[in-house]
Amino acid sequence: MPVPMSPPLHPGTKQPADPEFLSALFPMSLIMQEMSPERWIEIPEPVREIYRLWRPTPMFRAVRLEKALGTPAHIYYKYEGVSPAGSHKPNTAVAQAFYNKEAGTKALTTETGAGQWGSALSMACKFFGLDLEVYMVRVSYDSKPYRRYIMESFGAQVYPSPSTNTEYGRGVLAADPHSNGSLGIAISEAVIAAASSGGAKKYSLGSVLGHVLMHQTVIGLEALEQMEMAGEYPDMVIGCTGGGSNFAGFCYPFLHQNLTKGHKTRIIAVEPAACPSLTKGRFAYDYGDTAAMAPIVKMFTLGHTFMPPGIHAGGLRYHGMAPSLSALVDGGYIEARAVMQRPTFAAALEFAASEGILPAPEAAHAVRAAIDEALLCKRDNVKKVIAFNLCGHGHFDMAAYDAYHTGKLQDYEYPAAAVNEAMTHLPQVDFA
Amino acid sequence: MPVPMSPPLHPGTKQPADPEFLSALFPMSLIMQEMSPERWIEIPEPVREIYRLWRPTPMFRAVRLEKALGTPAHIYYKYEGVSPAGSHKPNTAVAQAFYNKEAGTKALTTETGAGQWGSALSMACKFFGLDLEVYMVRVSYDSKPYRRYIMESFGAQVYPSPSTNTEYGRGVLAADPHSNGSLGIAISEAVIAAASSGGAKKYSLGSVLGHVLMHQTVIGLEALEQMEMAGEYPDMVIGCTGGGSNFAGFCYPFLHQNLTKGHKTRIIAVEPAACPSLTKGRFAYDYGDTAAMAPIVKMFTLGHTFMPPGIHAGGLRYHGMAPSLSALVDGGYIEARAVMQRPTFAAALEFAASEGILPAPEAAHAVRAAIDEALLCKRDNVKKVIAFNLCGHGHFDMAAYDAYHTGKLQDYEYPAAAVNEAMTHLPQVDFA
Repeated sequence: MPVPMSPPLHPGTKQPADPEFLSALFPMSLIMQEMSPERWIEIPEPVREIYRLWRPTPMFRAVRLEKALGTPAHIYYKYEGVSPAGSHKPNTAVAQAFYNKEAGTKALTTETGAGQWGSALSMACKFFGLDLEVYMVRVSYDSKPYRRYIMESFGAQVYPSPSTNTEYGRGVLAADPHSNGSLGIAISEAVIAAASSGGAKKYSLGSVLGHVLMHQTVIGLEALEQMEMAGEYPDMVIGCTGGGSNFAGFCYPFLHQNLTKGHKTRIIAVEPAACPSLTKGRFAYDYGDTAAMAPIVKMFTLGHTFMPPGIHAGGLRYHGMAPSLSALVDGGYIEARAVMQRPTFAAALEFAASEGILPAPEAAHAVRAAIDEALLCKRDNVKKVIAFNLCGHGHFDMAAYDAYHTGKLQDYEYPAAAVNEAMTHLPQVDFA
Repeated sequence: MPVPMSPPLHPGTKQPADPEFLSALFPMSLIMQEMSPERWIEIPEPVREIYRLWRPTPMFRAVRLEKALGTPAHIYYKYEGVSPAGSHKPNTAVAQAFYNKEAGTKALTTETGAGQWGSALSMACKFFGLDLEVYMVRVSYDSKPYRRYIMESFGAQVYPSPSTNTEYGRGVLAADPHSNGSLGIAISEAVIAAASSGGAKKYSLGSVLGHVLMHQTVIGLEALEQMEMAGEYPDMVIGCTGGGSNFAGFCYPFLHQNLTKGHKTRIIAVEPAACPSLTKGRFAYDYGDTAAMAPIVKMFTLGHTFMPPGIHAGGLRYHGMAPSLSALVDGGYIEARAVMQRPTFAAALEFAASEGILPAPEAAHAVRAAIDEALLCKRDNVKKVIAFNLCGHGHFDMAAYDAYHTGKLQDYEYPAAAVNEAMTHLPQVDFA
């Protein structure tokens, strides 16, 4: 890290959290990874054995898209949709299931937004013989039953969140029986379910935390080798950001090259305008979850009580952002931009018309930015090399495409009032 | 072909169909391929350029499944689910769209069962700038809206079949307003829509015909090279059969090796017990469609008026079978077997628990047979090499998995009475 990181705080004492506090939620091996100063941590052989089911993932040059755009730019995309779960999420799901199994964990709890993370962790838990309890954001639970069926096919128990399982969930439902839910609420429920299990269950998070982002860097490490095989090096790398995991997984290895080899690759994070933590949020200490049960971390946040609109990129509906990514944006090492829903779907269809793949709505944010950059190259008649991470396919998101086709998909402006209100609930802490 | 083929007949005259009759439906280049005695036909460069978006597809050894089964067998699977449409169907869709474009065709019509074929052809038509009209079997149209949204995302017009577009469809609806539809009916509607367009539209079929099967042999040709890389050769190759295209695509190149190189690889076709054309049908001349508009071909058939139960492997709900495959089964070159729905889904889940991929219900038929053969190897303590084609993933079929989990999925016995009745409607022809 070229910038210092602020320590995570205990949500009660608001003092730096020690490993013991975190050990109620995570096995010690993952806590040690979270805090490790080592540059390299080896991937264990049992994890590699499973990675081989779909890794290395392909990296394509989008020759047909370049032609369709008439751009001199070269566009490359790394495609994580070939994993069995259809996204990058299994990279960390398998690793987390392995380390938990090794530590004697019998069951995990987690939350899921669009269901990509829940599907991935369900598969990983099945592979390692762990039970799994998934709190799925209500709006996705209702609109994406197929994802739930996948989780159930791998033996997971899936609950819509807010649920009646936890006192916190029951409280949210009492206040609003029709609550759409949010990742923040679902995280709270999953954390509570683990923390109150008397050690029987551990908690697993699909993004945001350092060890999660680190597990994902296998994407960018492969991409570095693949770009070398292609004989080019990217002038810019692009990823979409919800909690930050696919973005960091793809881009951090290129940042490492910038810092150590003198490359000047632009690194661009793309988020939805409806949930714009990096571009409109505050870089401040905040709770990772809505119920203020999770550690307090320094990050770009819209406030842990902020409830984003029910956009179709469910995986990007998180109030905060990975602390490491936040610090790098704050330090000027990474650019951030926000895009609207409708232009994002338009880009996805433009991509599909040339490359065949219908991107997940989350991944479509990266597609939008890549096409925008390629069109700037066309305007300026310059050849640049653009590489982006296509973190998943849209097979479970076709209802969103239908909404787009039938004109039901809205563009949401920056929800300024809701964010301003949420900002008044940031925790008061002594750390800068 | 080690066995003679009987010529296709004109549905009216019941005499051998000439190219002119077929040219109302297909461009001459595809008709010439259908009738070609050449062993090799080159793949045109514009088709190869698109194949490169996902080909070669991977071939895996299912090491984890072997371990879970405790079998000494080596199990390999060729995975066609990595194509953008999620199945093998784009292999011929792209080729057919190319040859039609080359011939000046502006629009195509087609039918689709589960929607895999329709998705593939929609993508191919988008690539080549052709309009497309899809008749989708009603039961799938209702239960699988996501497939329709994909087709619409690629610009296709999708109608539930029986539809009100054709006089034939209106007749079917008049007799049964709640008709589930069938591939046979949908083919009739698509054929009629093309034949009555005054040359404006051509028709495209996703299976059964010789040129379609030939386009698919890219699968088996790749598999031959991949098995050589693995240093093994299959003792048996397995595929599921609806119209025969994924099966032939994977297995015919191995049959070629049997016939020319003295290999003795067993070649096994697997079909659903609810629609068992190869194992319970008659090898006879029959119409390819329900309305008796399509050419009459000699094939294993359950009768063109047979209406299969609404099983979840929509792609296998066809009354007939590819004429070449039928002749090869009749000649003893290929074995056939039928499996029930519930054991098929059980096999799919067993496969997913080890390999991560949830197979399409169609592909699960091949999985069932591969596991059965692997268990025989275990019983007899012999190491055999089993290779099968996993022709697609089940991302759009999760409702079927849910039906299985919740006990709603039925096993259908052989529908003997319905088949016997349908057999009375076979056409009377002079050709043996």
